[in-house]
Amino acid sequence: MIFKTPTTHFFTCGSSEGLTQLNSFDGALLDAKIGNTNLVKMSSIVPPKCKLLEPHDLPQGSLVPVAYAAITTDMPGEVISAGVAAAYPTDETQAGLIMEYSSRGHKEDIEAIVRRMAEEGIRMRGLEVKEIRSIAVQHRVEKIGTAFAAVVLWDEE
Amino acid sequence: MIFKTPTTHFFTCGSSEGLTQLNSFDGALLDAKIGNTNLVKMSSIVPPKCKLLEPHDLPQGSLVPVAYAAITTDMPGEVISAGVAAAYPTDETQAGLIMEYSSRGHKEDIEAIVRRMAEEGIRMRGLEVKEIRSIAVQHRVEKIGTAFAAVVLWDEE
Amino acid sequence: MIFKTPTTHFFTCGSSEGLTQLNSFDGALLDAKIGNTNLVKMSSIVPPKCKLLEPHDLPQGSLVPVAYAAITTDMPGEVISAGVAAAYPTDETQAGLIMEYSSRGHKEDIEAIVRRMAEEGIRMRGLEVKEIRSIAVQHRVEKIGTAFAAVVLWDEE
Repeated sequence: MIFKTPTTHFFTCGSSEGLTQLNSFDGALLDAKIGNTNLVKMSSIVPPKCKLLEPHDLPQGSLVPVAYAAITTDMPGEVISAGVAAAYPTDETQAGLIMEYSSRGHKEDIEAIVRRMAEEGIRMRGLEVKEIRSIAVQHRVEKIGTAFAAVVLWDEE
Repeated sequence: MIFKTPTTHFFTCGSSEGLTQLNSFDGALLDAKIGNTNLVKMSSIVPPKCKLLEPHDLPQGSLVPVAYAAITTDMPGEVISAGVAAAYPTDETQAGLIMEYSSRGHKEDIEAIVRRMAEEGIRMRGLEVKEIRSIAVQHRVEKIGTAFAAVVLWDEE
Repeated sequence: MIFKTPTTHFFTCGSSEGLTQLNSFDGALLDAKIGNTNLVKMSSIVPPKCKLLEPHDLPQGSLVPVAYAAITTDMPGEVISAGVAAAYPTDETQAGLIMEYSSRGHKEDIEAIVRRMAEEGIRMRGLEVKEIRSIAVQHRVEKIGTAFAAVVLWDEE
């Protein structure tokens, strides 16, 4: 194995304005409390037996595997949202599935969509859904804004 | 070194329809037999002496470095293809090069293009090509479809 | 922890023409002396106490965490540039921040923009800037060209 398989995960989200598109993305990461880590984007599985934890601080500068959705726009007044959902199968020897979605639109709509995506993914695996967890965030753009939602994978402390 | 350098690699590809763009991408990963892992995208080298294996199962939820091409469209009837090629130099102390390409179009054309790209990359390094390996897949879109091809890097079992 | 936290970093940049977009990107990586590694893109922190080194060779095929900006275009005569900046806070227990920017335009303009982005990011953290380091590169496109700039994170040798 190249990397250690993650043993814990948590959900987080955030939003921000910023001087530039990347500064607003950085601000959204800070708002989500993971702005001082090095996010490594991955596609999007919760390993079997991976514990769900509350959001918690990670060491500054550490490399952190994460599944995320993000949207950044510069249209004043526009409402943007980002959401992630994880669907866990009834068979606990099987992995859970994370889905990400972001769009112009309201949080409740984006969250409903991403939950359905996760449910559908478990169904495509021929499994039954035990539970779906999700988080989403909405942002009204002033000048340049980002909405960001993530499932962070990490190792047992 | 931050990460262990991979010691094996294999080629895989897949395609799928899906409820949404991300579900069709997820379905293509399942079809390629790596849908239950956490893919970490990287640019695109086969380390020297890295063994070529047959496609095989990886632990669920593990973090897997991969070079891939993917295309997702929602135009019914459209033909889409994705391919990857690795060119290996005659000097076995030197790394091989992976190239990725996806587009609307037929598999044989996309595969020929990506093979030429890999060959050109070895030439740019001032090396001679010993061998080129490739894989490609074609998909005719019904509603929302994805074609996906990858070189997966992994460690000796 | 899933991955070891990087303990060193260096700045590099490069540019190239190529047969295709991906070949020109690959050529720019070669010009930056990291073309034979597997770059894993991440967002964008310099861990506290992370030593700044001169650019140096990395093992072929190794997986390398990197923050980078890149632009590839196919407009003959066009001037494109890529830059990265890291801003380090006066409080050395705190992480530094890397920003990336690429665009059509001249090197000095892109470098000034990305430096301001990094400075702004430290300000958003409520910290004071001790120092900003940056690198940028400019390329005039002949047929298909790439400009690339990066901060590479690595472990103590």
